[in-house]
Amino acid sequence: MSTMGNSTNIFWQESPVGKLERQKLLNQKGCVVWITGLSGSGKSTLACSLSRELHTRGKLSYILDGDNVRHGLNKDLGFKAEDRTENIRRVGEVAKLFADAGLICIASLISPYRKDRDACRAMLPDAFIEVFMNMPLALCEERDPKGLYKLARAGKIKEDDSSFILYQLIALLLQIELNQKDGVCPTPSAMAGEVVTYLEDKGYLQD
Amino acid sequence: MSTMGNSTNIFWQESPVGKLERQKLLNQKGCVVWITGLSGSGKSTLACSLSRELHTRGKLSYILDGDNVRHGLNKDLGFKAEDRTENIRRVGEVAKLFADAGLICIASLISPYRKDRDACRAMLPDAFIEVFMNMPLALCEERDPKGLYKLARAGKIKEDDSSFILYQLIALLLQIELNQKDGVCPTPSAMAGEVVTYLEDKGYLQD
Repeated sequence: MSTMGNSTNIFWQESPVGKLERQKLLNQKGCVVWITGLSGSGKSTLACSLSRELHTRGKLSYILDGDNVRHGLNKDLGFKAEDRTENIRRVGEVAKLFADAGLICIASLISPYRKDRDACRAMLPDAFIEVFMNMPLALCEERDPKGLYKLARAGKIKEDDSSFILYQLIALLLQIELNQKDGVCPTPSAMAGEVVTYLEDKGYLQD
Repeated sequence: MSTMGNSTNIFWQESPVGKLERQKLLNQKGCVVWITGLSGSGKSTLACSLSRELHTRGKLSYILDGDNVRHGLNKDLGFKAEDRTENIRRVGEVAKLFADAGLICIASLISPYRKDRDACRAMLPDAFIEVFMNMPLALCEERDPKGLYKLARAGKIKEDDSSFILYQLIALLLQIELNQKDGVCPTPSAMAGEVVTYLEDKGYLQD
């Protein structure tokens, strides 16, 4: 019996089918691929391309998209700093459950603050692969897929909501950094290939 | 672009590998088996037995246990009525994601209030299988695996926290009701068998 936060009288219930058994069934290892970067840096594109490539190899993955999750689990949250932190915490907790279930969970969120990403990494230190879409701000702003930069330039986004253009790179603990090469962005499939190679090298694509 | 609750400027990002493709990979259909009943009614026992039986058949399931989730995703929540509702809402949203990922998600929570269970059913109306552990209160109290009934009888649980012995059965929409037979509880494996037969009959165990 333990006390966690505001909860008392709660017990840990052991599951009889363990993570190792699920991984054997799936012939892969559960992990979290956490894709972070500015709005317009290509996070969702990479998530889609990566899940397609993994599926082609018979691997089960699932995308937790920051915006999609705000339609369901996190629809009670806004964009204040504490709401962003809670948004990322919940996605981290759910990603951890998916990894425990044996899936390759692809989380795609701006997640600008280092401490929020690190808190998620701390939940699953051995199976958290951070992928940083290190694309130039100018390129992201040119793409502006959601029109957010335009709104920001027009002063139409509250300061609280503008952290999508703040991005903390200090103390980076990332595993993979994707950059332009000679001023050209790699194709989605090339970027997915880089992540898949990493997963393969680290043994995630077999049980 | 849409507004959901407190969130604005959010978009729905389509995933390129769809539920049907994941189901084909797993040769099963994603769904939620929601096990509800009093403390001590055998929810966790059934969840374990069911996941074992499904694993034996090569099916991928994952248990969302109400108490376990309070150690992670829901550790900010207590036992006030609104916290219980939020606890169940979040588990429902996560269960929906697991079903979308193609898994047979086994949710095991007391979930005493009809409206909370119905809200979860509404998230996934076509693939929500409610299993009610209809065991006598006297039996549950005799088992009292967490000592909660003892605490309640001793007046040591705040009224707010005592809804584990309140259980709303009105307007039951359940698919499976498990009862004692001639005053004897069915074995965990017999109960799991009943649920597996249901899943089989409804086509969940193939893609």
